[in-house]
Amino acid sequence: MSRSLPTVLALLVAVPALGADLEEAARRLIDHQRREGRAYDHLTELCDDIGHRLSGSPAAEEAVRWGAETFRSFGLDARLHRIEVPKWVRGRPEVVRLTAPRDVVLHALALGGSIATSANGLEAPVLVVETFEELRRRADEAEGRIVLFNKRMGPDGNGGTHGYGDVVPQRVAGAIEAAKVGAVGSMIRSVGTADYRLPHTGMMRYQDGVPRIPHVAIAAEDADLIERLVARGKPVRVSMRLDCRSLGEVPSANVIGELRGRERPDEVVVIAAHLDSWDVGQGAHDDGTGVVACIEALRALKELGLVPRRTIRAILYMNEENGLAGGTAYAEDFAHELERHVAAIEMDIGAFGVQGFGVSAGEGGVETVRGLARPLAAIGADRITEGGGGADIGPMRAHGVPQLGLRSDATRYFDYHHTEADTLDKVDPVELGKCTAALAYLAYALADADEPLPRLDG
Amino acid sequence: MSRSLPTVLALLVAVPALGADLEEAARRLIDHQRREGRAYDHLTELCDDIGHRLSGSPAAEEAVRWGAETFRSFGLDARLHRIEVPKWVRGRPEVVRLTAPRDVVLHALALGGSIATSANGLEAPVLVVETFEELRRRADEAEGRIVLFNKRMGPDGNGGTHGYGDVVPQRVAGAIEAAKVGAVGSMIRSVGTADYRLPHTGMMRYQDGVPRIPHVAIAAEDADLIERLVARGKPVRVSMRLDCRSLGEVPSANVIGELRGRERPDEVVVIAAHLDSWDVGQGAHDDGTGVVACIEALRALKELGLVPRRTIRAILYMNEENGLAGGTAYAEDFAHELERHVAAIEMDIGAFGVQGFGVSAGEGGVETVRGLARPLAAIGADRITEGGGGADIGPMRAHGVPQLGLRSDATRYFDYHHTEADTLDKVDPVELGKCTAALAYLAYALADADEPLPRLDG
Repeated sequence: MSRSLPTVLALLVAVPALGADLEEAARRLIDHQRREGRAYDHLTELCDDIGHRLSGSPAAEEAVRWGAETFRSFGLDARLHRIEVPKWVRGRPEVVRLTAPRDVVLHALALGGSIATSANGLEAPVLVVETFEELRRRADEAEGRIVLFNKRMGPDGNGGTHGYGDVVPQRVAGAIEAAKVGAVGSMIRSVGTADYRLPHTGMMRYQDGVPRIPHVAIAAEDADLIERLVARGKPVRVSMRLDCRSLGEVPSANVIGELRGRERPDEVVVIAAHLDSWDVGQGAHDDGTGVVACIEALRALKELGLVPRRTIRAILYMNEENGLAGGTAYAEDFAHELERHVAAIEMDIGAFGVQGFGVSAGEGGVETVRGLARPLAAIGADRITEGGGGADIGPMRAHGVPQLGLRSDATRYFDYHHTEADTLDKVDPVELGKCTAALAYLAYALADADEPLPRLDG
Repeated sequence: MSRSLPTVLALLVAVPALGADLEEAARRLIDHQRREGRAYDHLTELCDDIGHRLSGSPAAEEAVRWGAETFRSFGLDARLHRIEVPKWVRGRPEVVRLTAPRDVVLHALALGGSIATSANGLEAPVLVVETFEELRRRADEAEGRIVLFNKRMGPDGNGGTHGYGDVVPQRVAGAIEAAKVGAVGSMIRSVGTADYRLPHTGMMRYQDGVPRIPHVAIAAEDADLIERLVARGKPVRVSMRLDCRSLGEVPSANVIGELRGRERPDEVVVIAAHLDSWDVGQGAHDDGTGVVACIEALRALKELGLVPRRTIRAILYMNEENGLAGGTAYAEDFAHELERHVAAIEMDIGAFGVQGFGVSAGEGGVETVRGLARPLAAIGADRITEGGGGADIGPMRAHGVPQLGLRSDATRYFDYHHTEADTLDKVDPVELGKCTAALAYLAYALADADEPLPRLDG
């Protein structure tokens, strides 16, 4: 597309001028992260000293304590918002094997929420399908089998017809659909984009009235092997032995840190991430980077004396991965405050390379954010797109709270997502600093604006 | 560098003209692999029906039978060359854990040849070093410890100061050097180039007179974690429990297939690869691709009626990975024939993208091969460099047999080498076909030449 000079000039004129103070705030935050940023130090503590931290685990509770103490160590207010979370444990490592045509150990992870098998495990022939539609078409072949859903994810996890959103239903609902047609177990090709014999875990569901069957993810290579053997007419059988189980609800907490506004402290801009992770790797990108960006954003604003008119509240949510208890409870327990929550920004896409923000707000909101974000062009974070938010802040949408989500380059995100390889070494301190500066700046700009963003229809 | 026109002309003139029959042979072999190549089908059988095949295992013996039968199924002569090989078994999966500052399961593989620990395992504080030199300098810190050799491999496994050859001594001799200074166990950062929590196994040695201690490879991420914890002053301890053991020597075989020469059948060009693999993954690139390229090269030459003056002998060696028994025994048992072995070409670098051949021969040999290889320019396989060969054919060097090694792009080879992820899906059928055509053509050209290559000094 090319535009005439008058059109370009008209566009330039249409964008309102930014106050010099905002330009200056962005410059200082970016510079501060570059020279004195400590987000990677916080992340080192979270990853190496605590490690992965599934809701309900001792490590998750350690992370709660660590989060609150870290806020306080910088002189920031911090409190715990007590909630109940589901506790699911993996137990002894899952054993999933090909038993015919020959013995091969498959690289597998039980999906979060799966029931166990009996102590002896289960063994059955395999039916391979790509989609739910194919399974329904071949329903008469499924009885007594283990179904393998073998839909591939495209190279770009961000979108397209084989993006995360297109593939993940097989993980979430595969056990339901397989059980409906009489299967005794189900497996998915791991939802991920790399090929290093690495299974990816994640959340799954059962449905009342449908039998509960064990549900596991296997590595891409193992799904390929089964597909090839079936294509060559070999009899393929799999055994699985899972020890995982749900242990009901246990107490936990969201951690809330705050930088109180100087003029309208009851009006709140939320910055958010989730403190829990899956029970593998270190939860470094997912969502350690978001957690430490929130903490560091408040620290940076305070240290630089950038105290906006409104309050900036950092919420480190618990239980995003397998229940969303933290996000749901916050929207309920703080419902009376939500009309004065002027925006919520979530960071939960890793810190591979900041790009900007997605925005869901009332009419004109995207344009307003686009204007505010212009000083982030220095770090490439000024790309503002329609539609955004995050799982944890989602429940505030019904209350009209504008939803924003930090966007970063997701090309490699789904290589590591929910695996043993989501570890600190994958995080670039410089990129993490840029994400942090972008988050801190936009929160500041929204919290200091004359007018809040147009709200969503509640 | 620019050259004057007369210089360029002089260079062109200096290269002898190739016979039209060789140009035609190359064209036909390349075309045949493109249209009717079956190397990937052979590899599918080897990988999916047999799988990994460590020397001395039932799968290795199955591979021997498969290799001979596959040659014969194409009407080619095949025989077994009986040898003895070491048998080492991994036993129950190794358990290696960080026990302090907190419990973390490390992703580890015992190295091939390692002794077991006691049934209860061993546990000790960790000393991290980068090199043997650093270990000697810090010898007084090693007593009673587990040493971690944490030297990183560079991104290009092919060379440089952090290439395979520079890093692999820590795998081979790490247990010796660590035991010399009183360590009770040793670990290496995996010799590899990817970061997906994937340990790489491989061969190691003990030395008479030096205590034997367990020796394992851990994933890059786990080595990073230990290094970071030590750098932050944390007390780091590791426990390991290994069940692996050596069970002496057992009978096995090299598989020899042959296309008999039409004029001088007693003169032999060897094409070679190794049939054994490590006991993980499928040994697809290492060295399944070499094995099937050798088989398919003979099949293609026979099918196209390209029978050269001399014999082409395909040797599928046993025990390259942990002993070289096949290569050693061949050079001994066939010593009387080696003066009439005019060349040996090994393929053992995967099939990621053929580049040409490395050549070790008597004076003028490299230039001769460069001339012969010109028709391989069509598939980019005409890059002929000084120095080449392969582990299995190495023992023939002392007999003067010119040594050649197929070269392919190794950029990704060490991502997968000796891991659970060296599986069929990593192999591109088109690239495998090009490797096969290049191997078949050069073997043909050497076997049909008026004069054999200048021999090495025996």
